[in-house]
Amino acid sequence: MTDPATTSSQPLPGTLILLRHGESDWNAKNLFTGWVDVPLTEKGRTEAARGGDLLVEAALLPDVLHTSVLRRAISTAQIALERADRHWIPVRRSWRLNERHYGALQGKDKAAVRDEFGEDQFMLWRRSYDTPPPELDVNDEFSQYDDIRYAALPPELRPRTECLADVMVRMLPYWYDAIVPDLRAGKNVMVAAHGNSLRALVKHLDGLDEETVVGLNIPTGIPLVYRLDGDLKPTGRGGEYLDPEAAAAAITAVANQGKK
Amino acid sequence: MTDPATTSSQPLPGTLILLRHGESDWNAKNLFTGWVDVPLTEKGRTEAARGGDLLVEAALLPDVLHTSVLRRAISTAQIALERADRHWIPVRRSWRLNERHYGALQGKDKAAVRDEFGEDQFMLWRRSYDTPPPELDVNDEFSQYDDIRYAALPPELRPRTECLADVMVRMLPYWYDAIVPDLRAGKNVMVAAHGNSLRALVKHLDGLDEETVVGLNIPTGIPLVYRLDGDLKPTGRGGEYLDPEAAAAAITAVANQGKK
Repeated sequence: MTDPATTSSQPLPGTLILLRHGESDWNAKNLFTGWVDVPLTEKGRTEAARGGDLLVEAALLPDVLHTSVLRRAISTAQIALERADRHWIPVRRSWRLNERHYGALQGKDKAAVRDEFGEDQFMLWRRSYDTPPPELDVNDEFSQYDDIRYAALPPELRPRTECLADVMVRMLPYWYDAIVPDLRAGKNVMVAAHGNSLRALVKHLDGLDEETVVGLNIPTGIPLVYRLDGDLKPTGRGGEYLDPEAAAAAITAVANQGKK
Repeated sequence: MTDPATTSSQPLPGTLILLRHGESDWNAKNLFTGWVDVPLTEKGRTEAARGGDLLVEAALLPDVLHTSVLRRAISTAQIALERADRHWIPVRRSWRLNERHYGALQGKDKAAVRDEFGEDQFMLWRRSYDTPPPELDVNDEFSQYDDIRYAALPPELRPRTECLADVMVRMLPYWYDAIVPDLRAGKNVMVAAHGNSLRALVKHLDGLDEETVVGLNIPTGIPLVYRLDGDLKPTGRGGEYLDPEAAAAAITAVANQGKK
């Protein structure tokens, strides 16, 4: 895939395309979702299709797809790729790309949590780097502890809650072992995932410190493109959204989540 | 996945589930499709969902999916697996599971071909084991010779027409190298593919001779289940459809295709 003219002793990697899933049922209901496997709304499906159109307009077509094992990311990728006539590319899925596990907050209304625990605690759970919410009981109706798709994992890998630091720890091995080899092979790689698994990846790529990542919001359905140098470092910090104006507007909207 | 009680020196393989895609746009229009990448109709999507329901009712859930690189098979599998809450399983796609390439017949009306060339020639092209239709010109509007998804294949692997014998030759390596290892690992394997790639696989599994396979029709959207012994031979010839009555009715309908 690499143009021979650009090949050096360290060939340039392919392009990385990050895609956060479109609106899900529980986004629409303003509930903490985490590992609960809720479907896209019709709006979310439309966002995904628009994401595919943006790829076509940019002539930036993925050669391979990586997704979480949650249907909102899987469906977003399918819809976008179908639109871009790339439904046939190889795909790998991993729990390591899942959304942050929201612990005891899963299934709870964001505004209600804010009211009950106050703005400071709410923002600490929602955005702090290293403060996880309380653990979710494994017998809770919103626990995935015994879900068949995680059953082969040893118990210590099955989270009952996570902070962003925990997501970094479990996401990065997949970046290094599964995604980087595809990039090194010169492929354009799409990663269809979630607000927090993508924040963790962007923190790594842009070398953000723990304070800066707190303020980072990634909008849904707008491909975020990172071009990388021979050391897998971004050639431009923060990457490029394929629709920068819509991205800027959406970032503001995400920051307002949880407000009534 | 294998029950320890059934483990011998040669552990039993997993169960094989074959699924032919639901109705496509060109099935509905009675056109020869082959490698042309047409979408499912709404009826086809309903068939796929019904296929997923049948898997759930039979408590026969795939652990891994293999599909062709054509969207009618990919979508059928996605819809069925989404219904069965198995959207997250690993998937591999290969052109080796594609429909038979119909050569110069691709894009042509079945009834018109029958009228132009007569019943005997029509049935020879459509059902004979070793008579391919005339080659499709690589510049024809319905040629996939330069499609990006096949561009990495050397020219001799990119068909311009195929008979069922050709499909056997290109499909079987995928059976042995990709599907069998999953079955040997004790996994339930779903193969979502096409009338003729599945006929080729069934010919192999059931040891059908070239005359018998001519009369074999596989209905759309109804999972066909093969349980296999330690030598990967079916424990029951012909497998079992999860809805035998609907399958019998559909087989009759398929046999009538091309009649006005």
